[in-house]
Amino acid sequence: TVFGPVYAQTMPRLRWRMATSWPRSLDTLFGSAEIVAKRVAEMTDGRFEITPYPAGEIAPGLQVLDVVQAGNVEMGHTANYYYIGKSPSLAFDAGVPFGLNPRQQNAWLYFGGGLQAMQRVAADFNAITFPAGNTGVQMGGWFRKEIRGLEDLKGLRFRIPGLGGQVMARLGVTVQTLAGGEIFLALDRGAIDGAEWVGPYDDERLGLHRAARFYYYPGWWEPGSTLSVLVNLDRWRSLPKEYQEIVKAACAEANERTLAEYDTKNAPALARLQRAGAQLRPFPTSVLQAANREATALYEEIAARDATYRGIYENWKKFRDESRRWFGFNEFRYEDFVRTLR
Amino acid sequence: TVFGPVYAQTMPRLRWRMATSWPRSLDTLFGSAEIVAKRVAEMTDGRFEITPYPAGEIAPGLQVLDVVQAGNVEMGHTANYYYIGKSPSLAFDAGVPFGLNPRQQNAWLYFGGGLQAMQRVAADFNAITFPAGNTGVQMGGWFRKEIRGLEDLKGLRFRIPGLGGQVMARLGVTVQTLAGGEIFLALDRGAIDGAEWVGPYDDERLGLHRAARFYYYPGWWEPGSTLSVLVNLDRWRSLPKEYQEIVKAACAEANERTLAEYDTKNAPALARLQRAGAQLRPFPTSVLQAANREATALYEEIAARDATYRGIYENWKKFRDESRRWFGFNEFRYEDFVRTLR
Repeated sequence: TVFGPVYAQTMPRLRWRMATSWPRSLDTLFGSAEIVAKRVAEMTDGRFEITPYPAGEIAPGLQVLDVVQAGNVEMGHTANYYYIGKSPSLAFDAGVPFGLNPRQQNAWLYFGGGLQAMQRVAADFNAITFPAGNTGVQMGGWFRKEIRGLEDLKGLRFRIPGLGGQVMARLGVTVQTLAGGEIFLALDRGAIDGAEWVGPYDDERLGLHRAARFYYYPGWWEPGSTLSVLVNLDRWRSLPKEYQEIVKAACAEANERTLAEYDTKNAPALARLQRAGAQLRPFPTSVLQAANREATALYEEIAARDATYRGIYENWKKFRDESRRWFGFNEFRYEDFVRTLR
Repeated sequence: TVFGPVYAQTMPRLRWRMATSWPRSLDTLFGSAEIVAKRVAEMTDGRFEITPYPAGEIAPGLQVLDVVQAGNVEMGHTANYYYIGKSPSLAFDAGVPFGLNPRQQNAWLYFGGGLQAMQRVAADFNAITFPAGNTGVQMGGWFRKEIRGLEDLKGLRFRIPGLGGQVMARLGVTVQTLAGGEIFLALDRGAIDGAEWVGPYDDERLGLHRAARFYYYPGWWEPGSTLSVLVNLDRWRSLPKEYQEIVKAACAEANERTLAEYDTKNAPALARLQRAGAQLRPFPTSVLQAANREATALYEEIAARDATYRGIYENWKKFRDESRRWFGFNEFRYEDFVRTLR
């Protein structure tokens, strides 16, 4: 086969800034942004250089979409449920209470029409979005007193953002939103009664076990939170096709590796937290049931007033129910048995 | 910041052949190889062209490592447990009976030292290996008669390869190894009493539901089988660094996407199989317990005679036990609740 001459390719040198929602100290979350940057550099021999910045350095942590939309930075690394105020549909990109686990989330995004739907929504904000990290099922957070039933939630001052917070509010919780760096002090001083962050590894880094004793599971409000890379749409279109494909691949790698990193690091972190005195407690079934009821009611209310959300929600719900049935037969029957081994 | 001049890069045009272990008709498995090829082409603007070949076209399906080792083809897409005859340690690359689920498998490979260990083993065969696909927990296969207990396995002629087959043989099964394309006829004619392949989507394509009625779960011998790309080590070292990084990224994408594709396609396929008359049956707990006992005994026996295997096994076992404890607290407590919703 004749290939013709060796081509002299001229690929541009680019230096982009990436705003993130994460403090540098959280090496899982900020590290996920660093994976994207590192892999793009490696695949382009350093010609396409991306620098991630911690929350607050070039943009506030919860305004990454805003600065990407405005074109103040070329790209960002965040979780799109921070932007449900702009469009409630974006909740499905990161995941919702009692929603999909990480594998189901990837399946829906890549093969269930999810990512296309999310990219249509993001385009309204002059951005394109790609999955680029996953935390796994999160923990239910830290409480100064035990939660024995629904009555213990009434009036409880609990730090929890997003839709999980809205569900908690419907259960009588006084919901607080604090940035990651503020949680420890508020909990330690008794300004709040409890707080959720992510899971054992990240929570340990924030020191939450030194401010509250009871560590609840599971974090039903975040069963597989997807992190996302956002790129300004004009900047995206200006990229050579190969660079676009390389960015996509780097995001996919971050999506897979960050989950694997959490799955690795959370296991010994949980053991360390227990040795340090953390008391593990499952949420009472009555709390899970009431929370699921309120979550479903909340989704239906949003669907009644937002047609875009309604379309995505109906597709998502069908996918979720079919997927749960399949996982229940096989994956979890295997795990049921494995859990009897010890 | 000064970047200096735009560089004129000269990246070679390459055309490589990829031997695979899969028939073209299995669009999940062969499709996983195609993802790798497609993504490398997209990231190099077609300069690096990889063509996957179905099993039997340029190499027998179970001799992919052999032809890669010999340099007859540059690369392959396969599952490394096919080569436990060369080194039993390779079983851990794809996964072993009662082993890690897909997320734990990725965690061990990427962050638990697994991939480094597997690449050291592969280097003995002049190859480098990368995870490039995962099937999820497989199904337990098709049986013409119900399996009510261990006694029903004695003398049963069952198609199952690898370590799963060795465990089955210890339980009294007459183990058969047949290539994918031969299974349907053997089962339909009664030459065998049962056969396992992968899961609903792939099994439906082979037509196994038309040859046997009882469909068992879970496939405890393959709880998260990793597919792998193998590259001849000399050819690998001859690649420009950027092409190496692009191949790695393409493999990681295939690893994640193939699992997501299975997780999507298996759900409706299972419903179709049930409508076509498949009877779903869980393996009796007594069978699972005996199989787990024999699997553990088998691993210990191999460890006693193979020092490389022993080192990897000890690391893997520690990782597995710690990981199971963490997943049991959080991930599966969430799923336990979700399974009560219906």
